[in-house]
Amino acid sequence: MKKQWKAGTLLYPVPAVMVSCGADESEHNIITISWIGTINSDPPMLSISIRKSRHSYDIIRRNMDFVVNLASKELAHATDWCGVRSGKDFDKFKEMKLTPEKAQVVKAPLIAESPLSLECKVKQIIPLGSHDLFIAEIVMVNYDENLMDDESGKFNLDKAQLIMYSHGMYYQLGNQIGKFGFSVEKKKRWRNDKARKK
Amino acid sequence: MKKQWKAGTLLYPVPAVMVSCGADESEHNIITISWIGTINSDPPMLSISIRKSRHSYDIIRRNMDFVVNLASKELAHATDWCGVRSGKDFDKFKEMKLTPEKAQVVKAPLIAESPLSLECKVKQIIPLGSHDLFIAEIVMVNYDENLMDDESGKFNLDKAQLIMYSHGMYYQLGNQIGKFGFSVEKKKRWRNDKARKK
Repeated sequence: MKKQWKAGTLLYPVPAVMVSCGADESEHNIITISWIGTINSDPPMLSISIRKSRHSYDIIRRNMDFVVNLASKELAHATDWCGVRSGKDFDKFKEMKLTPEKAQVVKAPLIAESPLSLECKVKQIIPLGSHDLFIAEIVMVNYDENLMDDESGKFNLDKAQLIMYSHGMYYQLGNQIGKFGFSVEKKKRWRNDKARKK
Repeated sequence: MKKQWKAGTLLYPVPAVMVSCGADESEHNIITISWIGTINSDPPMLSISIRKSRHSYDIIRRNMDFVVNLASKELAHATDWCGVRSGKDFDKFKEMKLTPEKAQVVKAPLIAESPLSLECKVKQIIPLGSHDLFIAEIVMVNYDENLMDDESGKFNLDKAQLIMYSHGMYYQLGNQIGKFGFSVEKKKRWRNDKARKK
């Protein structure tokens, strides 16, 4: 039997990403977001939730676009810093030595140092209480070409060493447990081969 | 300079959870969900996205509630299996030897073996394309009391050994990188102490 709390945001682990926004350099900002999720496969969509009081809230609402930049282990410090400091007080790109890079479709800049940047166009904003939910379509994916394995030709996101957030702490990804579908893979032949060798 | 793809759901890593639903035993089902995210802090809310064709879609739509059960390493096999098999063909609780446990507030059952189960009431359903977005309020948190550290009295979610999903693969959590706010913590005194000792 489990114990109870009345309620709480205890879905963990969740992503920790840097969302960049702003139509021009004077407006550029970065906000760290963990209240984020993929919400649709076709068309590809995701949502982010932002408090009205945050500096990025008005910027994104005005431009109706943003970029989700996945955070690698090397970007963990900048990811944390951009989450506790405000764009009202700091030029976050400058302070964190991050490079704004022109996006393909949206006005907001990519963060050049991020291994993977998703350009997003806001489709709907839903007020929920403390946060507003920004429902957005992913219109372009920008990835570091080092993530492509030269030999296999496969996209290897594992190489990016992405971080996540769980109950007040940042983590690296750990051991692989299995591929999607591993629980129904046929292993009989392998087992038989193994048995025969004994 | 990054390379581009037209678009794709490449926000990773994301959670991998088992969502349980159904008002009575004949209706009970489990669906594995990675298109999930926290969307509001106050009141605590999360969203899950489900394809209309999934067996759980109608069950949740009818009852307007569900339970999000976090998945530990021990539950990785069941989590994968519940994601590739359909409740139309299997009694998933029975097949995976999972125990439905009565929830406090909602009609849907908890999964007793999960370290943390969030009872959720659906507030709004938004069709997006391939998936419908279920916006829900978290109305009760059920946790395994082994997650409370006896000595410190602190809730230690790390003990649950939660898993996540990234680009076709399940992972364990890896090394801790730092606490939220670590980038602005004052370390001067510690540095001075260290210097004095030399």
